[in-house]
This record gives sequence, structure tokens and C-alpha cells, in this order.
Amino acid sequence: MARGHFMNLLERQWERDAFLCVGLDPVIEQIPTGIQGGSVGERILAFNKVIIDATYDIAGSYKPNSAFYEAYGDEGLRALKETVRYINEKVPETPVILDAKRADIGNTNNGYVQAAFDDIGADAITVHPYLGSEALEPFLNRVDKGIIVLARTSNKGAGEIQDIAVDGEPLYMRVARRVADHWNTHNNCALVVGATYPEELKKIREAVGDMPILIPGVGAQGGDLEKSVLYGKNSKNQGIMIAVSRAVIFASPGADFGEVARAKAQEFDSVIRRTLIQ
Amino acid sequence: MARGHFMNLLERQWERDAFLCVGLDPVIEQIPTGIQGGSVGERILAFNKVIIDATYDIAGSYKPNSAFYEAYGDEGLRALKETVRYINEKVPETPVILDAKRADIGNTNNGYVQAAFDDIGADAITVHPYLGSEALEPFLNRVDKGIIVLARTSNKGAGEIQDIAVDGEPLYMRVARRVADHWNTHNNCALVVGATYPEELKKIREAVGDMPILIPGVGAQGGDLEKSVLYGKNSKNQGIMIAVSRAVIFASPGADFGEVARAKAQEFDSVIRRTLIQ
Repeated sequence: MARGHFMNLLERQWERDAFLCVGLDPVIEQIPTGIQGGSVGERILAFNKVIIDATYDIAGSYKPNSAFYEAYGDEGLRALKETVRYINEKVPETPVILDAKRADIGNTNNGYVQAAFDDIGADAITVHPYLGSEALEPFLNRVDKGIIVLARTSNKGAGEIQDIAVDGEPLYMRVARRVADHWNTHNNCALVVGATYPEELKKIREAVGDMPILIPGVGAQGGDLEKSVLYGKNSKNQGIMIAVSRAVIFASPGADFGEVARAKAQEFDSVIRRTLIQ
Repeated sequence: MARGHFMNLLERQWERDAFLCVGLDPVIEQIPTGIQGGSVGERILAFNKVIIDATYDIAGSYKPNSAFYEAYGDEGLRALKETVRYINEKVPETPVILDAKRADIGNTNNGYVQAAFDDIGADAITVHPYLGSEALEPFLNRVDKGIIVLARTSNKGAGEIQDIAVDGEPLYMRVARRVADHWNTHNNCALVVGATYPEELKKIREAVGDMPILIPGVGAQGGDLEKSVLYGKNSKNQGIMIAVSRAVIFASPGADFGEVARAKAQEFDSVIRRTLIQ
């Protein structure tokens, strides 16, 4: 696949004011009854295609979370791969972030790199920071791909480890700084910061310059959309990927789920745009 | 599958002095030419079966690392699943640890739980600590399964994050203590501590009581086997899973690779036993 660099794809999306990242996290029990018949994998793919068709001109990126596909074994994995291929064909300039939260030792990470980028065909991946940058080299050396490091996650209990005080600042700030100052030599790094922690987002943005930030937690998780935009944006009034999954893809349980997903995506998108020009 | 609890399976292995954990990390280019023909998935499975047949009475556990299978897409995943099934059928009392280093937010971890335990059929999984125990609840609530948390990893650059000083002690000690004191309410937790850091292993063992420790890094990574045993064992002279992968499975590139793998496994096993009775 002759895809552009992740950062270039992303910047092109920002230039058209597309900051919404649509999370493709299918749960078979929640797939509307409009999608019938076929295997689990086929229904997931059919569902995703409707969502993509309904949002392709709004979404600045797509973010399938690997767990929701792995749950269905090898046919789930095939559905994931087909979903990424479908996005790549339909909107070749829209990057796909594989939310896989991987990280192993260096030798082993080669397998994950091959899986995410070569087999599945994603443009970016989320990774854990715990093993350090030396272990992440197989990811970081893929200069054409986005390596999005967890700094502050959106979950309620994120603080248990991430708030541990390190020289007077929480661990997540140390992680964010290390990524910005030391891991980003190829200019292909980004950070994950949950929308459920706007104050933390503000502090991280102040510390990391213009680095892109992926912000999940808006919608079902209750994160604050306006604050995510205001506190997350960089000096160019860009730099954010606002990820919404359930609140878009499962907005309607009926046969109109595509339409309603589109309306929901438009709603999030217009709030983001409006907030950015404040 | 009517499998026993991971901790019970593990203890039964320890009672027969089986502490060696054989890492099943296939790399297609390194699979001996004795394994010919068939698809990549079939060759991986055939290779694993030879290794399992050669080591089943020595290994106290098996540890396939998910990355090495994901690298080959859905057929890699099928080979992983078939490998676990083969172990379960051949040696039903030998636990299988899926080395997947997962961790997402709680809702999402359900997918990984389903994948690892229900689809793949593993008895235990390795997880990252960064999101905290609240996120890991779907794992921790599986009381029959082993949840093995990364404390000190075996890689050269592990210290970048894990050595960060927290109230006068390194972060990995804080993580190890939290797991032992707060996450282990169902008595199903264990820790990962690399054999490449014997002094750190010693300190962790002193802090976490009799909790099982998975110790990778012996063999190709150069970890010290004797020290791993002496510093890793618990008060009952047990409590360790010494993981060796490449040094066993790729011990010979020839048609005799099963035999040589067995000899290597026996060698590691006898050093472990000898060291334990010192």
C-alpha cells in the first residue's frame, strides 16, 4: 500500500478541520438487528461498513480497538483487517489508528509491528510506556507510522499508577515529557490523554509543544468535549484527535443506525469546530 | 474445558519440581527445514507440536507469546489456538500462559479476557500495570485464571520508566507492592521480573511474600539462571516460573531440533532443581 506518512495524513485532515476520530468497537450483541445473517465476522464487517459509509466525510481518523475483534477469534481478526482495507479504499487519506495498547521487549515487538502495520494495514498504533523507548524501537523506527503512547488514560482508576508522584509531579507528566523530549526523534509520536481528565490534559499540552494528542473518553465515558478541545489543541489550533466510539456507532439500536450515527458524528464534529474558533 | 485454577495447576507442577516454562515463540524463518510444506500456520503448529512432544514431561508451564502469532495474521492466531488446544489435550495439568502484555480500560478488557481465556483457552495472561487495578478488573475477576503483572521487564532499557524514583524506591517496587498488597484479593496474581535483573528480583521477592514470579530472560537474553532461582524462589522453595524460549526451541536448526530442544530443556531443568536444593 502506498500510504502517506501518518503525520502527513493527520495534518491534511486537520487542514480540513476534521478532528473527530470514530472508534470502531463492535459488540455483537449491540449490533442493530438491521444487520442480519452471516457469521459473527461478516456481521461485524457489515456493521462497520455502514458506520464508515455514514461518517467517512466527517471522520478525521478511524480507530478500531483490537480487543473488540480479538474477542471473536480469528474471524474477528479477519473482520478487523477487512475493515481497515475498506477504509483505505474508500477514504485513502483518512488514517486508521489501531488501538491495541501493545508493548513487549524489542525482539518481540517486531511481531506486533508486522501485525499492526503490515498485516492489518494500520497507520498508527497505541502503545504502553512501561518498558521504555529501547523496547519500543521497532515501533519508533517505523517513521511512516504513528506511535501513540499512553500518558493519561481515561479510566476512573487511571491515577493509581499514573498519579504516583515523581519529583513533585505525577508519573503521567514524566511519561509525557519523555515522549516529547526523547522518544520523538522521528517526529512520529503522539500521546493518549483521556477526555475525562481535562486538567491533566491542559498540563500535558503545556509540556509537550505541538505533539498530536489522541483524546478518548468523550461520549459514553462522560468526558468533557469542549474542555478536551480547548485544553487539548496546540499552538496551531490543531493537534487533537477526539475519539468517540459507542456514542456514535451505537447511537440507535434500530435500522436507522447509520443515519443516526452520522447525525451524532456531525453533532460532535460541529461542537469541536465551534469550540476551536472560540 | 474443565480446567483447574491456574494457581492449583502451578502448585501441582511445583510439587513435582517442574519450574521450567517453555516459551513457544515461533519465527517462521528459524523453523528447521525438517518442518516442510503447508501454510505458515500449519508449519508453526507442526513445529510447536514437535517442541511440545519433546518437552511435555519437563515443562512446568508453556508460554506462547501472542506477538509471534499475530505477526502471521488470522492463520497465526489459529496456530496459537491449536497449539494451546494441543497442550491442553496432551498435558491437561500443565498451565498455559498467554504472554500478551495486554491492558486497556475495563470495558475493553472484557474483549481481551474473552480472547485469551475463552477463545484461545489460556490459563493465565501477562498484563501491563499502567492503567491500574480498576481497569484490570475483568482480568482480576477471573479467579480461575492467573493475572501476571509486569513489574520489572527483562529488556535493557527497562529502567527508563521502571527505575523512576518514587518516595525513595523505584517505580517497579511500587508496582510489585501494589499487586501484592492490593490487587491480589482473589489470590490469582503473579509478577513478571526479568532474569536479567537479579538484584531487582531479590528485592521484589523480599517485598511480595510467596507470590509466584514469572522470570523471562534466561537463555538468549543472557539472564543468570542460578541467581534467578536463588533470588526468585519463595519461602517454600517454590514460587518461580523460569521462562526460556529461543535457547530451547531454536537450539538446533537441523532435523534433530526436537531432540536437541529436549536436551536443552533438561539442562535448564536440572540446573534449576540443583540450585533449588542448595
